[in-house]
Amino acid sequence: MAQADIALIGLAVMGQNLILNMNDHGFVVCAFNRTVSKVRDFLANEAKGTKVIGAQSLEEMVSKLKKPRRVILLVKAGQAVDDFIQKLRRCKDLKAKGLLFVGSGVSGGEDGARHGPSLMPGGHKEAWPHIKAIFQGIAAKVGSGEPCCDWVGEEGSGHFVKMVHNGIEYGDMQLICEAYQLMRDVLGMEHDAMAKAFEEWNKTELDSFLIEITADILKFRDADGQHLLPKIRDSAGQKGTGKWTAISALEYGVPVTLIGEAVFARCLSSLKDERVQASRKLKGPQKRPFEGDKKSFLEDIRKALYASKIISYAQGFMLLRQAATEFKWSLNYGGIALMWRGGCIIRSAFLGKIKDAFDRNPELQNLLLDDFFKTAMEDCQESWRRTVSTGVQMGIPMPCFTTALSFYDGYRHEMLPANLIQAQRDYFGAHTYELLARPGQFIHTNWTGHGGNVSSSSYNA
Amino acid sequence: MAQADIALIGLAVMGQNLILNMNDHGFVVCAFNRTVSKVRDFLANEAKGTKVIGAQSLEEMVSKLKKPRRVILLVKAGQAVDDFIQKLRRCKDLKAKGLLFVGSGVSGGEDGARHGPSLMPGGHKEAWPHIKAIFQGIAAKVGSGEPCCDWVGEEGSGHFVKMVHNGIEYGDMQLICEAYQLMRDVLGMEHDAMAKAFEEWNKTELDSFLIEITADILKFRDADGQHLLPKIRDSAGQKGTGKWTAISALEYGVPVTLIGEAVFARCLSSLKDERVQASRKLKGPQKRPFEGDKKSFLEDIRKALYASKIISYAQGFMLLRQAATEFKWSLNYGGIALMWRGGCIIRSAFLGKIKDAFDRNPELQNLLLDDFFKTAMEDCQESWRRTVSTGVQMGIPMPCFTTALSFYDGYRHEMLPANLIQAQRDYFGAHTYELLARPGQFIHTNWTGHGGNVSSSSYNA
Ligand SMILES: NC(=O)c1ccc[n+]([C@@H]2O[C@H](COP(=O)([O-])OP(=O)(O)OC[C@H]3O[C@@H](n4cnc5c(N)ncnc54)[C@H](OP(=O)(O)O)[C@@H]3O)[C@@H](O)[C@H]2O)c1
Ligand SMILES: NC(=O)c1ccc[n+]([C@@H]2O[C@H](COP(=O)([O-])OP(=O)(O)OC[C@H]3O[C@@H](n4cnc5c(N)ncnc54)[C@H](OP(=O)(O)O)[C@@H]3O)[C@@H](O)[C@H]2O)c1
Repeated sequence: MAQADIALIGLAVMGQNLILNMNDHGFVVCAFNRTVSKVRDFLANEAKGTKVIGAQSLEEMVSKLKKPRRVILLVKAGQAVDDFIQKLRRCKDLKAKGLLFVGSGVSGGEDGARHGPSLMPGGHKEAWPHIKAIFQGIAAKVGSGEPCCDWVGEEGSGHFVKMVHNGIEYGDMQLICEAYQLMRDVLGMEHDAMAKAFEEWNKTELDSFLIEITADILKFRDADGQHLLPKIRDSAGQKGTGKWTAISALEYGVPVTLIGEAVFARCLSSLKDERVQASRKLKGPQKRPFEGDKKSFLEDIRKALYASKIISYAQGFMLLRQAATEFKWSLNYGGIALMWRGGCIIRSAFLGKIKDAFDRNPELQNLLLDDFFKTAMEDCQESWRRTVSTGVQMGIPMPCFTTALSFYDGYRHEMLPANLIQAQRDYFGAHTYELLARPGQFIHTNWTGHGGNVSSSSYNA
Repeated sequence: MAQADIALIGLAVMGQNLILNMNDHGFVVCAFNRTVSKVRDFLANEAKGTKVIGAQSLEEMVSKLKKPRRVILLVKAGQAVDDFIQKLRRCKDLKAKGLLFVGSGVSGGEDGARHGPSLMPGGHKEAWPHIKAIFQGIAAKVGSGEPCCDWVGEEGSGHFVKMVHNGIEYGDMQLICEAYQLMRDVLGMEHDAMAKAFEEWNKTELDSFLIEITADILKFRDADGQHLLPKIRDSAGQKGTGKWTAISALEYGVPVTLIGEAVFARCLSSLKDERVQASRKLKGPQKRPFEGDKKSFLEDIRKALYASKIISYAQGFMLLRQAATEFKWSLNYGGIALMWRGGCIIRSAFLGKIKDAFDRNPELQNLLLDDFFKTAMEDCQESWRRTVSTGVQMGIPMPCFTTALSFYDGYRHEMLPANLIQAQRDYFGAHTYELLARPGQFIHTNWTGHGGNVSSSSYNA
C-alpha cells in the first residue's frame, strides 16, 4: 500500500502542475483535494498515463505514503500576514507532536510549477534531508544545473523571503515603467524602437525575464494591426504582497524606499479618474524639445535603470538582514540570490552577480559595499544623474529612479542633516540628542534660554 | 459634594498642565491618579492656591463630579495601533452602558497643555455639547480668537487625525532638513546666514513654528561660543507615529509618499556606523562649484520647500479622506486644518490657507485642485525643478523634495506608464487588464502566441 514518495493536497492550478513536475522527475505522488471529485478528474485527465495515484480521504492518503510521510499542502492563501504569523506558530507547535513543518515560498506561477519553480523552503531543518531531493529535483535550474532551491532558514523565513521577492518584483516593474515613459515622452520613441531598445538591453547587465517580456509586450500588435500596449488602461492592480514588504520595512525600520515608492506608484495609477481631472487643471513645465543626443540619452536611461535596480536589491537584502536579526534566523543570502536567479518573475543574470558577491564575502553587510556593485554604481552615476535631472526638467514622474538616487546619496554621506531633526525634537519636546563626540550620552538643551547652557543628563528617550 | 465640572485621571506632565489650564479658564477640576500620593503632592505644590480639588479614590472622584459626569483619562499610551483599535471598540461597547466616549488627540506637549493645546476630539457626538465649552475654552486660539479644537468625527477619528498630524510633522521636519543641507552643501552658507534665511522665510508663506525654531537652532551657540547644531549626532530618533501614518497609507492604498520617505530618511540616518563606512567607499559626483546666482538659488530652495509642503498636506488630506470612506466617518476637513493651525508642532499660517480652501469648497477632492494651491504650484515649479536638478547633479540626497515632485508630475498625468505593469501582470500571471476604451471589462491576452488573439472574459482579478 505505502508506495507514494509524497502527497499533495490542493488540486488547483499550482498543485496539479507541481504534481506533474514531480512525476516527471520520477517521484510517486499521491493527490488529494478537499473536494474529492477533483482527485478523480485529475487522475482521469491531466494525470492520465502518469504514476500519480489518488486518495479519497486524508486517511487513505496517509496510508499510501512511505515513511517518513511527506505532505505538501498547496491550498488557497489567507490574509498574507495572518497566515505568516500562524505559520510561525504552527511551526513551533507541530514539532512537539513529532511533525516537522516546512513553509515554502513558491514562485513562477503555473508554468513554473509545471516546468521548474523557484522554491524557498524554511522551517524545521530536520525535514530538509527528507525533501531535498524532491524539491531540488523539480526546481528551476540555472548555470550548470544548479537548482533554484536551497534551505532558506528557520521558521517562516521561506515565506518572508518570498514576500521580499514580490516586493522587489514591484520595484523592477516600476523601474521599467519609468524607463518606458522616458523613452516615450522625452525621446519620443515609437513602440517598435522601444521594443528594440529593450531587446538590446536584454543582452547587457539588465538581462532578465521582465526586460525580455517588456520587449515582447511593446512589439505586440492587436488583431487590428495596431500596438496593444497604448490601449491598455494605466491603472495598476496589486494583490498586496508588495504592500506587505513595504509595511515590514517600516515595522523593522529599514529604508526600503524603492519598493515603498513602487507600491505607492500603483496606488497613484489607480486614481485614474482623479488624474484625468487633475491633468486638465495642473500645468507641467514649459514644453521644451529634448536637445541632447538621443542615442546617448537612451544609454543614460539604461544606466539609470541599472543603478536604481542595484539600490533596490541592496535595500531588499537590508530588509532580509534585519528580519534575520529580529527573528534570530541565520539566512543564506547567497542561496537566496540563487533561488531567485531562475524560475521566478525577477529571474535575471544580475542575481548571479549578487550570488557571487555573497560567495566572495558571506558576511557582506550591504551589496553596495561589494567591489563589483560599487564599481557598477561609479560607472552609472553620471548617466543616472543626467537622466533624473532631464526628466525632472521635463516633468516626467520618476518616483523610483529618484528615491534610489536619494538613497545612494544619503547612504554615502557620513553626515546627514538629521542633526537638525534631533535639535528640533529636543527644542519642542525635550527628546534629548547625542553629540557626535559622545554617542550614547543623551543631552537636553534649553534652546530658548539665552546663553549656551547645555544641561547634560543621560536618560534615554 | 458634587462641585467639580470635570475630573482628570493621570497626573503626569500632560495631566497636571491641562488641569491648570482648565482652572485658568474657570472650570473646577477634580484630580486623580493611580498612585494616589501624587494627588496630594499636586494639590500641595503646582495646584496650590487654585480651585482644583483632589480625590483619593475613583469612588470619591465620581462623588465629587457634577452630572453628567465628565472624566478625562490622560495616562500612558500603549502601542499606538492596538490602542487605536481598542478605543474604537471601547467606543462601541460603552454607549450601551450609558457612557459616552470621546477619544481626543492632544498636541503641543507640556507647554501646549498648559497654555493652549490643539485638541482633536472624536467619538460619541452626543458628548460634545457637554465638553465643548471646556475643550474650546482651553485650546489654543488663532486669528480673532478661533479655538484650535472642533468636533472631528465618529469613533477613533480624533486619534487618526492626530496620527496624520504627526506624520505630517515628520514630513515638514525632513523638508526643512533638505533645505538646510542644500544651503550648507550647495551654497556653502554659514550657520548665521542660514538662520537669517529661515527668519526671512518665516515672513513668507512658510511662516510656521518649525521654521521659526529652525532659525533659533541655527543661531544657537554652545557655552564655548561655537554653534551647537553641527556638533549634534545626525541620527534621528522616532517614537513610531510617523511610521503608523505611513503604514496606514499603505493599508488604505493612498500614495502618501512624502511621509513614507520622511520616515525612511530617519531610518537611514540611524544607520550611522554603516554610513560612515560607506562614505569612505562610495564616490559621489565629481565636485563642481555652484556656478549660478546664490541669492536666486536660495529663493529656488524656498519655493521647492513650499511646493513640496503643499504636496505633503495634499497627501495627508487624501489619507484622511480615504480613512473617512473606509470607516464611514464624515470628517470636518476645514475644522481639522483649523485645529492644526495653532497649538501644535505643525502650526502655521499655511494651515489657514488650507482652511480657506475647504471653506470655499467643503467637497474639495484634493488640495491641489483648489485655485490658491494650483496657482502656488505654478508659481513654484520652475524653482522646484531647478533645485532638484541642481541637487541631483551635486549629489545631495533629497528624498522628500523629489518624491513630492514625482507625485506632482504623476498626479497631473492623465496617462501614466502603468499600462505596462498591467500588460506584464497579464503576460506572466494572466491577471487580466482593462482597455482604456472599456473600463470595467477584464481581458486576458495570449502574449506569447503569434498574431493578435485577444481573448476577452470579464472575471475580476
Ligand atoms: N497561482 C499562482 O500563480 C501562484 C503562484 C505562487 C504561489 N501560489 C500559491 O499556491 C497556492 C495554491 O494556489 P492556486 O492558485 O493553485 O489555488 P487557489 O485558488 O489559491 O486554491 C484552491 C485550492 O485550495 C483548496 N482550498 C481552499 N480552501 C480550503 C480549505 N479551507 N481547506 C482545504 N482546501 C482548501 C481548494 O480546494 P477545493 O477544490 O475543495 O475548493 C483548491 O484545491 C496558494 O497558496 C497560492 O498563494 C500561487
Ligand atoms: N508628553 C507629551 O508631550 C504628550 C503630547 C501629546 C500627548 N501625550 C499623551 O498624553 C498622555 C499622558 O502623557 P504624559 O507624558 O503626561 O504621561 P505618561 O508618562 O505617558 O503617563 C504617566 C501617567 O499614566 C499613568 N498610568 C500609567 N499606566 C497606568 C495604568 N495602567 N492605569 C492607570 N494609570 C496609569 C501614570 O500613573 P502613575 O503615576 O500611577 O504611574 C501617570 O499618571 C499619553 O497618552 C501621551 O501619549 C503626551
